[in-house]
Amino acid sequence: MSKVKVAAFSLSVDGFGAGPRQDLQNPLGVRGPEMFAWFFQTDVWKKLYGHGEGTRGVDNDFAQRSFENVGAFILGRNMFGPVRGPWPDDSWKGWWGDEPPYHTPVFVLTHHARAPLPMKGGTTFHFVTDGIESALRQAKDAAWGKDVRIGGGVSTIRQCLRGRHIDELHLALSPVLMGEGEHLFEGMNLHELGYTLDRAVAGENATHLRIKKA
Amino acid sequence: MSKVKVAAFSLSVDGFGAGPRQDLQNPLGVRGPEMFAWFFQTDVWKKLYGHGEGTRGVDNDFAQRSFENVGAFILGRNMFGPVRGPWPDDSWKGWWGDEPPYHTPVFVLTHHARAPLPMKGGTTFHFVTDGIESALRQAKDAAWGKDVRIGGGVSTIRQCLRGRHIDELHLALSPVLMGEGEHLFEGMNLHELGYTLDRAVAGENATHLRIKKA
Repeated sequence: MSKVKVAAFSLSVDGFGAGPRQDLQNPLGVRGPEMFAWFFQTDVWKKLYGHGEGTRGVDNDFAQRSFENVGAFILGRNMFGPVRGPWPDDSWKGWWGDEPPYHTPVFVLTHHARAPLPMKGGTTFHFVTDGIESALRQAKDAAWGKDVRIGGGVSTIRQCLRGRHIDELHLALSPVLMGEGEHLFEGMNLHELGYTLDRAVAGENATHLRIKKA
Repeated sequence: MSKVKVAAFSLSVDGFGAGPRQDLQNPLGVRGPEMFAWFFQTDVWKKLYGHGEGTRGVDNDFAQRSFENVGAFILGRNMFGPVRGPWPDDSWKGWWGDEPPYHTPVFVLTHHARAPLPMKGGTTFHFVTDGIESALRQAKDAAWGKDVRIGGGVSTIRQCLRGRHIDELHLALSPVLMGEGEHLFEGMNLHELGYTLDRAVAGENATHLRIKKA
């Protein structure tokens, strides 16, 4: 059955899913990339960005699986870019260049309407102004029976957890103390929301946690 | 050199170091014991409580090391017992029976004075009413060059981290979502306080994290 899932989402051991002060120079927030060290070394990531070969092992398997059977993505506005408020023009096309790594329809949550933006390689950004439930409906439709992956960021995932929209989360717990940034679980009772930790697997550079909705 | 350390302290993946609603029936809080599953299976724990043999491996090694070179303990009042306010009498002698597993002087933080309490096996509980810095001074003195171990609970460890009193923490990250309870890191910036994650080691039933003060 088609699922709504989070996959390969990096988390610091003190619970942050992004660093503080995101801007054009720091798409993942200050020190954010340290949480992605496990991912940047994988064969999956290296090949994706034409950096030759990377490591193959547990981390790479999880990275690989995160792209499998995904029919559509949902992203929060900040994950799409640093622009705030109304779109001044159509020049911002995401952080990822001409050919983003999604290759599916991508639904971007925003308060500001914008025409769909087709990119190379099968990615089209759709801008959804009427909330997460509408985005989920549109994404499920567009996914044609495949899974919908919530790409992030932290506040979008929190919103989806609070609404019990997510069936499965794979978090990559990274050996980093962020200290500040966006906390994934703060003030949220996942146990009460019906989530349980299903598996914990040690990778080479992260511990992989799988959380499922009961 | 003698250190102030936290060792074998269990943490849920959502960051809680104890369950909610501690009382006589729930010394670790409701669902708290789930976080200690890794420890309860070790040979160290089983032998300590006369339950035969347990597992030997990474988890057991960490459990073993947590007792090595410890010259004195510091405990918060709630870790010593469920009694609140002034001591009604001397009947409460800790959760651990006649022979507690410390075998050293143990300094208990409390607002209410009480005479030292010698127990079997070399443990003596001393009640410290003038704060953590006094407790640290007394514990270092009593440890005779060995380490001082902060046994917990969460609020005592938080207080010691805020004061940068702890040189090294070993946390056992357990595959459990607590949802509520006492959060170890909430509102605390360990990075800014000068702490870094030094090692992350996968055990059989927990991921062991070693955090050090720079």
